[in-house]
Amino acid sequence: MDNLHLDQHISQQFNTDLEELKTQLLEMGGVVEQQIIDAVKAIENADGSLAEKVLITEDEIDKREVQLDEQATMVLARRQPAASDLRMVMAVIKVTRDLERMGDEAQKIAKMAIALNEDGEAPRGYVELRHLGTSVQKMVNATLDAFARFDVNTAVQVAHDDRNVDREYKTAMRELVTYMMEDPRSISRVMNIMWALRSLERIGDHARNIAEHIIYLVKGLDVRHTPVKEIERQIQDA
Amino acid sequence: MDNLHLDQHISQQFNTDLEELKTQLLEMGGVVEQQIIDAVKAIENADGSLAEKVLITEDEIDKREVQLDEQATMVLARRQPAASDLRMVMAVIKVTRDLERMGDEAQKIAKMAIALNEDGEAPRGYVELRHLGTSVQKMVNATLDAFARFDVNTAVQVAHDDRNVDREYKTAMRELVTYMMEDPRSISRVMNIMWALRSLERIGDHARNIAEHIIYLVKGLDVRHTPVKEIERQIQDA
Repeated sequence: MDNLHLDQHISQQFNTDLEELKTQLLEMGGVVEQQIIDAVKAIENADGSLAEKVLITEDEIDKREVQLDEQATMVLARRQPAASDLRMVMAVIKVTRDLERMGDEAQKIAKMAIALNEDGEAPRGYVELRHLGTSVQKMVNATLDAFARFDVNTAVQVAHDDRNVDREYKTAMRELVTYMMEDPRSISRVMNIMWALRSLERIGDHARNIAEHIIYLVKGLDVRHTPVKEIERQIQDA
Repeated sequence: MDNLHLDQHISQQFNTDLEELKTQLLEMGGVVEQQIIDAVKAIENADGSLAEKVLITEDEIDKREVQLDEQATMVLARRQPAASDLRMVMAVIKVTRDLERMGDEAQKIAKMAIALNEDGEAPRGYVELRHLGTSVQKMVNATLDAFARFDVNTAVQVAHDDRNVDREYKTAMRELVTYMMEDPRSISRVMNIMWALRSLERIGDHARNIAEHIIYLVKGLDVRHTPVKEIERQIQDA
């Protein structure tokens, strides 16, 4: 009985550890999501002080990454998890890294907002930026939701959405290159928008990565480098 | 005695596991390094078939990533390592990811080589590309060396080098934007070079990440998001 009690106790503490990791991760995700929204808004409204706020908050995200990583490594060392518990800890470590990278990209977008404030607004590209910004932010939101509820279907949907984001991105880039050729004086300003679009596309990639980690976590399937259709097939078979 | 023997046996097997992870990782690193060299060469020499080779080899890198990750997770589950052994496994998992991302960037450079082959050569940017390519390739080589020998000093040197690469990159970009304004018809071709430069700068970032993982592995210090000078101070104190 004592042993059982001890086991339960250890297991209870372990559950608390895992729950804590999940909560911290979702909190970090919330901060990153807001950073993306703010960074895009900073460009749209030529809002320098909002851009500065994004740069400052980036430090907080970095700290959260280091802390979460430390916490997760501690759980590995202390609890020596196996099977799905181990997958959970590994997923937290990997998702943390993707979230931090998303934060980096939001920071880059904020820097472009500051550059546009200094050089003057770009004559084009804002519609594309708003569009792609909205699509990507929805993806990030869905991804965090999928993680919170260990929801594989939503994760697969995110992988689908990433393909649309890539298409939207490519179309926008082609249009902006054409525009620059017509109005070469605008090149450096339009390029600021292009870099911001590129960062958004990257954020979409990271959301897709996280979706893949969720599928690994829930199904034990490693679906990296796998086309969406094939992912769907594998999940049905699993 | 039996117990001791068993312990030794387990420990021996564990050593073999860790050595195997290290060997696999360095092998993967070698493939990635060659990809970077080939991708840059493909642009310089307008060599479409070399670019195609890079695209094909990218699949191999993806497979190695998935395998190494699986192997490392297995070691965690079976051996339940602690302290420096745990750091070693965690470092392998993280470095693997950075190597795979470097491979992705090499693939992007190869795609730019193919685009330049189709659209015709760019009138400018090749000198900058060769320069940055050489710097970055040296960084990657030094990083793998530092990992092979658990050499913190070389790792710190890589962090230094990354700052130079960032500076080189920014100068090159400014020059190319100026050039595009003078010759707008060249925009889309010059942009191919710019994307390739961007990818090289990213590869430099990943090399720096790996350097940071090495410092964590050897010294137990998490030096992410830390300026180089501060890293040097922390290492001296450690």
